[in-house]
Amino acid sequence: MGEWHETHGRHILLDIWDAKPTVLNDLEFIQDTMLAAASAAGAAVVGDMFHRFPVQGLSGVVVLAESHISVHTFPEHGYAAFDIFTCGTHVDPEAACDHIIARLGGDRYVKRFDRGLPEGIHERVAQLQTAAS
Amino acid sequence: MGEWHETHGRHILLDIWDAKPTVLNDLEFIQDTMLAAASAAGAAVVGDMFHRFPVQGLSGVVVLAESHISVHTFPEHGYAAFDIFTCGTHVDPEAACDHIIARLGGDRYVKRFDRGLPEGIHERVAQLQTAAS
Repeated sequence: MGEWHETHGRHILLDIWDAKPTVLNDLEFIQDTMLAAASAAGAAVVGDMFHRFPVQGLSGVVVLAESHISVHTFPEHGYAAFDIFTCGTHVDPEAACDHIIARLGGDRYVKRFDRGLPEGIHERVAQLQTAAS
Repeated sequence: MGEWHETHGRHILLDIWDAKPTVLNDLEFIQDTMLAAASAAGAAVVGDMFHRFPVQGLSGVVVLAESHISVHTFPEHGYAAFDIFTCGTHVDPEAACDHIIARLGGDRYVKRFDRGLPEGIHERVAQLQTAAS
């Protein structure tokens, strides 16, 4: 492993079940929800792209200066898979997550991960700090 | 929790370190790599969007009929954060991951997750199967 830098990458995998199919098919509502979520996080939107599938369901991504928010909906299952991924310390991905949950309803399952952390980095930093003290 | 359906969501978080800064700033190369990765997975591309940041670095997403492949690069750190997220059983996200690793080089840290699985679902299914047998 070469030199390592903290990018403060925080990635939230948000799975929502039991949402209303009409909501999960409403591109304008989902797009508005995601743009508002980006705003709630304090993130800067650099672009967005949404795609409506022929029968039902949609995919969308809001690209941020600080990474992205994405969604894939399965109205037939009442299911939507959101990702909220931010880097840097000035944004709050939890605020974006809360905003989406508040607007979508349903049951939700949230997993949180740090990104960009090489395995064992915390242990190595602790060892270096101990060695230097 | 309401009725649950298996979407076969597979999400790979691929963090690459020690990649060449020139490669991480090369939008055409990164875009081509991701489109080829989608093809290697057997996925259908429905659109893509890339953004070049003013000083350095880029963000991009390839939206698939089966979810997405995304990237955020930090050339100043030799770092890139890829997501490879697919649903369904006919695609192979590992093939996309392998393709990106082969073309980018560097050190890599890969985490794999199932998406869309309510907590404890495996235990509940096992209980139902036991009760029914």
